[in-house]
Amino acid sequence: MQKLCAELEAIWHRDIPISAQMGVRIEDFSDDVLTVTAGLEPNVNLHGTAFAGSLYSVCALTGWGMAWLQLKLRGLDAHIVLAEGQIEYRRAVAEDFTSRCRFDAASQADRISRLAHAAKSELRLESTIAVGERIAVRFGGRYSLRAVR
Amino acid sequence: MQKLCAELEAIWHRDIPISAQMGVRIEDFSDDVLTVTAGLEPNVNLHGTAFAGSLYSVCALTGWGMAWLQLKLRGLDAHIVLAEGQIEYRRAVAEDFTSRCRFDAASQADRISRLAHAAKSELRLESTIAVGERIAVRFGGRYSLRAVR
Repeated sequence: MQKLCAELEAIWHRDIPISAQMGVRIEDFSDDVLTVTAGLEPNVNLHGTAFAGSLYSVCALTGWGMAWLQLKLRGLDAHIVLAEGQIEYRRAVAEDFTSRCRFDAASQADRISRLAHAAKSELRLESTIAVGERIAVRFGGRYSLRAVR
Repeated sequence: MQKLCAELEAIWHRDIPISAQMGVRIEDFSDDVLTVTAGLEPNVNLHGTAFAGSLYSVCALTGWGMAWLQLKLRGLDAHIVLAEGQIEYRRAVAEDFTSRCRFDAASQADRISRLAHAAKSELRLESTIAVGERIAVRFGGRYSLRAVR
């Protein structure tokens, strides 16, 4: 699992260079929960808190990474494209931050595994960023998956 | 007006350093339309198109910049904070891109001018990115404005 995470992080840093500038790092992937971190410093805004665009980017990447990992775990390959996103900023984030996305296998595994025979699928994923024990940012994304044979 | 745009761009590059990394530049502000550009290269993703997070960031900044400019034009000062955002990616953007936000003075000017006496206001702004003549990205943001006295 650590090898997969290292591969995913390397893809981000190499092929989405702004993610390296943002200092995006995979913290953990276990029990179908992916956590991705970024530092405040490269993502700071004029209020000394995290820039709304960086918070969105890290949440969107966390969902993308989850889709990528779930495909890999099933030996599948697909183009993963974010089709739409919504984000709510509930409180300012004035520290290094961690985005967390949970994959609910019971309701979502079929969305991935159908790509073994179907050309397309779609996955809705939620990522959140907490400050202390309170949710500061809530992101929802609809990801389009197109099988690569 | 050019002086205001130069001031806004300088604030972004100095106080939101990731915007400089993304190569965000103000292209024009006239007739209540703000256009903001960014290059594909620093914002590329693994498909060779613009990263969804960068498209969002540039759209969100365009709305923020519009709020800032409308305040400045009225001699007002306020904290501008994005409270929520929605974005729809209709087609891939495989080139340098321009985000465009229009301020509808007839329906929205009061949202700004009330800050001369009110402590708070709110502004909904839409930014779009076109490829050729077709809309590729449509962003909507709700910005909270808090007067600074």
